[in-house]
Parts: sequence; structure tokens; C-alpha cells
Amino acid sequence: MARVVVDVMLKPEILDPQGQAVEGALARLGLAGVASVRQGKRFEIDLAGELDTATRAQLHELAGTLLSNPVIEDYSLRENVEDAS
Amino acid sequence: MARVVVDVMLKPEILDPQGQAVEGALARLGLAGVASVRQGKRFEIDLAGELDTATRAQLHELAGTLLSNPVIEDYSLRENVEDAS
Repeated sequence: MARVVVDVMLKPEILDPQGQAVEGALARLGLAGVASVRQGKRFEIDLAGELDTATRAQLHELAGTLLSNPVIEDYSLRENVEDAS
Repeated sequence: MARVVVDVMLKPEILDPQGQAVEGALARLGLAGVASVRQGKRFEIDLAGELDTATRAQLHELAGTLLSNPVIEDYSLRENVEDAS
């Protein structure tokens, strides 16, 4: 079983009103020194078996088209990430 | 400058229709062996200065209340995460 995590964030030059709202709320609730907050999406994909080169390429292709909008978003793909709370 | 990343995911026992829709789409688009997909939120918080114990405690408090709904969601908080694409 392989776990792949895809993080999708708005590109730095794209305005992020959700992140700005969170930034304002964190400051209002007393957190000092907040410089910036950006909000994005996280996908946890569990795959049967091990990752081979073809699957990896396919995942990158899908992360860049289905999971993110390449015009306004960047994705980052990590493999076999452990849960940590 | 400290960067804190908060990942918010639905608890495992909570149904995730968004994740299921992505799971169906990935399979339909030809990705084999998809066992499960969960979708959640990711917050990238940049703070001025270094993290001290009080700020860290405050961040956990806010991650568990403002950023996530503790009834249905779990959060995980990581410090000084590097960007990787």
C-alpha cells in the first residue's frame, strides 16, 4: 500500500481571499506576528501495491490537471508520507 | 521567519463525498489500484520571528478551533516545512 499526498496551493502571485480571512481572524484572536496565511487543498491518495515509474508519471499528470488548475495553482506531490498529529 | 503548516482532514469515520468523487474520477481517468482518496485543507502560516512555547500552544489552540472543527476533523501541525514541488 502506497500513500501519496498531493498539496495544491494557489500560486504566490494569485490573491488568496480565504487565506487573508484566516490571517485576519488569527490576528484578531490574539496570535502575534502573523505575516501571511495561504489556504489550499490536500489530497491523501492510497494506492494498492507499490508505486512504479508509470504510476508515478500518471499521478503527476492527474495532479496537474484533475486535482489542480495549472493556471492559478501549483501542486506538490509527496510519497509515503506518515500521519502525524 | 517561521513557517507552520496545518493540515486539516476529516476524521476517518466521517464520510468524505469530495474524496469519493476524486477517487471515482481518478479511476475513470485510468489510474489503477486507487484504494481511497480523502480531501482536506492545508494552511500555510508564516510568522515573524521564531516560535516559542507560548506561540506554539496558541497555534495548537487555534488549529483545533478556528482552522478545524474538532467534532468532525483532525488537524496536524508541522513546523518549518520546506516547499517541495
